Amino acid sequence: MSTDNTVYSTVALAGRASDTRVGEAMLALAAHLLERGRHVLAADSVGIDFGLLPVSRVPESELAKAADLLVAVGGDGTMLHTARMAAAEGVPVLGINRGRLGFLADVGPDRMLESVDDALEGRCLPETRMLLEAQVQFSGQQISALALNDIVVAKRETGRMLDLRTWVDGTYVNTHGGDGFIVSTSTGSTAYALSCGGPIVHPSLAAIVLVPICPHTLSDRPIVVGAESIVEIELADRFEARAQVVCDGMVLSELEPGERLRVCRAVISATLLHPPDHDYYRILRSKLHWGRGGRAAQPPAG
Amino acid sequence: MSTDNTVYSTVALAGRASDTRVGEAMLALAAHLLERGRHVLAADSVGIDFGLLPVSRVPESELAKAADLLVAVGGDGTMLHTARMAAAEGVPVLGINRGRLGFLADVGPDRMLESVDDALEGRCLPETRMLLEAQVQFSGQQISALALNDIVVAKRETGRMLDLRTWVDGTYVNTHGGDGFIVSTSTGSTAYALSCGGPIVHPSLAAIVLVPICPHTLSDRPIVVGAESIVEIELADRFEARAQVVCDGMVLSELEPGERLRVCRAVISATLLHPPDHDYYRILRSKLHWGRGGRAAQPPAG
Amino acid sequence: MSTDNTVYSTVALAGRASDTRVGEAMLALAAHLLERGRHVLAADSVGIDFGLLPVSRVPESELAKAADLLVAVGGDGTMLHTARMAAAEGVPVLGINRGRLGFLADVGPDRMLESVDDALEGRCLPETRMLLEAQVQFSGQQISALALNDIVVAKRETGRMLDLRTWVDGTYVNTHGGDGFIVSTSTGSTAYALSCGGPIVHPSLAAIVLVPICPHTLSDRPIVVGAESIVEIELADRFEARAQVVCDGMVLSELEPGERLRVCRAVISATLLHPPDHDYYRILRSKLHWGRGGRAAQPPAG
Amino acid sequence: MSTDNTVYSTVALAGRASDTRVGEAMLALAAHLLERGRHVLAADSVGIDFGLLPVSRVPESELAKAADLLVAVGGDGTMLHTARMAAAEGVPVLGINRGRLGFLADVGPDRMLESVDDALEGRCLPETRMLLEAQVQFSGQQISALALNDIVVAKRETGRMLDLRTWVDGTYVNTHGGDGFIVSTSTGSTAYALSCGGPIVHPSLAAIVLVPICPHTLSDRPIVVGAESIVEIELADRFEARAQVVCDGMVLSELEPGERLRVCRAVISATLLHPPDHDYYRILRSKLHWGRGGRAAQPPAG
Repeated sequence: MSTDNTVYSTVALAGRASDTRVGEAMLALAAHLLERGRHVLAADSVGIDFGLLPVSRVPESELAKAADLLVAVGGDGTMLHTARMAAAEGVPVLGINRGRLGFLADVGPDRMLESVDDALEGRCLPETRMLLEAQVQFSGQQISALALNDIVVAKRETGRMLDLRTWVDGTYVNTHGGDGFIVSTSTGSTAYALSCGGPIVHPSLAAIVLVPICPHTLSDRPIVVGAESIVEIELADRFEARAQVVCDGMVLSELEPGERLRVCRAVISATLLHPPDHDYYRILRSKLHWGRGGRAAQPPAG
Repeated sequence: MSTDNTVYSTVALAGRASDTRVGEAMLALAAHLLERGRHVLAADSVGIDFGLLPVSRVPESELAKAADLLVAVGGDGTMLHTARMAAAEGVPVLGINRGRLGFLADVGPDRMLESVDDALEGRCLPETRMLLEAQVQFSGQQISALALNDIVVAKRETGRMLDLRTWVDGTYVNTHGGDGFIVSTSTGSTAYALSCGGPIVHPSLAAIVLVPICPHTLSDRPIVVGAESIVEIELADRFEARAQVVCDGMVLSELEPGERLRVCRAVISATLLHPPDHDYYRILRSKLHWGRGGRAAQPPAG
Repeated sequence: MSTDNTVYSTVALAGRASDTRVGEAMLALAAHLLERGRHVLAADSVGIDFGLLPVSRVPESELAKAADLLVAVGGDGTMLHTARMAAAEGVPVLGINRGRLGFLADVGPDRMLESVDDALEGRCLPETRMLLEAQVQFSGQQISALALNDIVVAKRETGRMLDLRTWVDGTYVNTHGGDGFIVSTSTGSTAYALSCGGPIVHPSLAAIVLVPICPHTLSDRPIVVGAESIVEIELADRFEARAQVVCDGMVLSELEPGERLRVCRAVISATLLHPPDHDYYRILRSKLHWGRGGRAAQPPAG
Repeated sequence: MSTDNTVYSTVALAGRASDTRVGEAMLALAAHLLERGRHVLAADSVGIDFGLLPVSRVPESELAKAADLLVAVGGDGTMLHTARMAAAEGVPVLGINRGRLGFLADVGPDRMLESVDDALEGRCLPETRMLLEAQVQFSGQQISALALNDIVVAKRETGRMLDLRTWVDGTYVNTHGGDGFIVSTSTGSTAYALSCGGPIVHPSLAAIVLVPICPHTLSDRPIVVGAESIVEIELADRFEARAQVVCDGMVLSELEPGERLRVCRAVISATLLHPPDHDYYRILRSKLHWGRGGRAAQPPAG
């Protein structure tokens, strides 16, 4: 429960402590937050010994509800998981990476205590990121899930092609033959969608990116549509192909032929806290190795 | 000057009549519009003989000002030119193609009279398309131009690479080594930008697409930003390279080293009239040959 | 068994007769070949009633051994299957497609009897196509398979990335993070590899194409190496990912972590018969819809 | 003139001495070679003062003729120029880069003296690289040039598209609408062609890569053909477009409409000397930043 965002009296720590770098960072963060007079929480499932530090353990499902701020330590996987939990309760997330800068966890371990102080003292920049919701009928039941990055329809059988029919806002778009189809947020545009030829979409742009995976038709290119669009995907009944719906990397269900997966903007959204000097393009340059060569240069003439 | 859009009492015809298909279509349109009681205009520079038809000739620069509706006959080149003229006066444009469906001229010659009636009787769907404005200092003078598709910085010397520094909303993005750089509207996303690896952007999305042309760095990928973003481009002083600024295919000026090209959303925008059954995705499917094969299919197993 | 290629006294028909277009073509071919004095074979598993036509039935495994020429009717899937069978016995294959031109089945149904006569009278152009052989240890056993198109290492678990280490001729190449990896012949370059960004390789070029599938690293691009290269692929032990080896679309085995898949040119190769006016580039133009538009044209200036 | 390649009694130094790093390296190389009892040459046009070192100055056009070995210091531009000179006389080239590893200049400044000793003592690995020859009629005259990387037909007028008709071995391939067309060697496959979507081709593969530049048709993909293929390119007479022929970055001539540029393997080829531990794939990994991240990782499930 979040009462006063600028105070953050209760701070929850999230991360896979089995990674020792993560565990050590969580210990240091707990000590620092307690020193700053905060109440500190961790999930009871996290395998870490806080020793004498008075860290309260709660079930993971209660973590976001009980906190005013979530501090996630780890890679983008941990961030995705924590951000979805936090979004459900309207609690902001500060992401600490384990070493290598992440698109979501944009605070390095060397600056994590400083960034926590920035957060506690209101100097961080809150940024809202939309989530997508997937809804699909499976075995006669309506199931759904949220995603911060992407919702993917992927083939289950190797060696076979999927034929996926798509609609945007009720209008038929195309039948995409290939390995599958990605519906991505701007946040997810630098994740799987980028590997499949999708564009980088600035997080401030309210948009959904549709990216065919290894499309059979070479002109079947990524399409960017507005964030309020409803995207529908149906498996055409070809070669008895089988497909799965995957949300932020986790399998939601099989997509049965004839069923329509429906993807739309979720009602809730995530709030990321960034350090005061946050620069999206600097992260892009760093992650994508821009400015450090590539192919052989064209020589100057003469 | 447009007084009542639903009446369109004065209709101007635009097109390159040197193409006989265009000339014939313009004659038929003039006859039809006169029959419908409209006042018909054409530019005095258009090499077409309307015979006995009472078509008023005006200088091309006066065409949009004097009309309530512009009907453009031709390819996307004619449409771009006419739409920029029309946008300056707030007059809508109906685009008739010469045979092959265009992204902008989406009415076929076989349905042009029917579509004109749809327009005259208010059944057409008006769609607003943003324009970009390019501003640059050249030879000590500030010059500018509008574009419906794209503003391109292109190398002038073959065999040499340009190094272009870019900023979005004052934040440095990257130094792009390569053949040049495209700043495109959603409308232009299916034009030159698409050939350079950019995504398709639905025209209803207020966005600007930044596409490096043949980038030296392979991870230098297209970026989609919001329509209100200010994009700046500067030529780095490498190998004495020379660059030009090109707006919708027309050279605006050279880009001198040290000068910053500034691209932003134009104050004015264009209004396209579409036939009642307009379907953007159907045009995409048709233009991009979707649904008609491609590479060899993966065989079903077994 | 092939005694005299120019005579083709025994001709076997192959195809999935469950497709009625295939069944009808096979009947017409049988009648035509019998009329030309040939002995005609078909697999006993093919569900087709030749009526009074004296077509000899043999087990499919004996088909190529017993024939001097194989005529395959169907799509590229049938062709791949038939060509591998034929290659094992050194028998040439003539490919008849069911309607739409194929890269491998390049004779249309309207010209099939004429092309069969071309084959029987020695006017067809024989073309040799190399095959690849995959060798891998699975459950303690060495297994192997041949492919005319490609050998693919594909992920089995959706939502997870594979890390695949590759070597060419014993030299380490890269660790490819992504959806998998393709080792393709020139023949396969227009199949799955093309959808994954690989180049078109002319069938006469003795080459192997290495194509990463949706690579995590954007500069991880296709590599073309010589046909005599030995390619090795190993699954890195990340996230307990699981991978499969797929040869021409059929699963060969799982790729266990630590095992190395070895791919090399097969000892045998396939011989395709082409009609006298065969033109590879015409097939490319037809299959890839070249010469029929694409994105919006750049307008001429002015 | 080369008498005994393993002795290299006369060694010529090549490079742009205006770059101080190059000048210093050339001085150190000259001193080292003289100490090793070699006769040292430099072009009289090179702006460098060898002081008391007895370096013989010859016209640049005589450099390769007079030497047994050329040592090139600089980037790929210097290497291209030197390798073409050397190829004409059958003299091998050792490439020293100025700091950043190059695809052609693969010896770092820190190891240059060691590598020169490797060359003098026969421990270097000689590698043959084919050259391309461009032949074209211009103003009624036949002109030609050689290229180690690529021969490019590029548009001269910004904002206009070229239509280029291509033939391989006399067979029509396609009409490529776009910014131009690249004919590249395997060596050039990691240069401009790579930026335009071409594959990496191992230098040991005798091949020619055909790469359309920003093609209008999205399925107009790179094609790899055999090294002995004859490639012809003709400018279609569209929009009065103008095109240039560019060889290794240097303009050879304009391509007049109706004239056919002919590209084929040159009779001569270049010999590069590599250090004993040369590893092509290590250079690729280094230049293309493989193995150091990219887009956001897919998270492990759960």
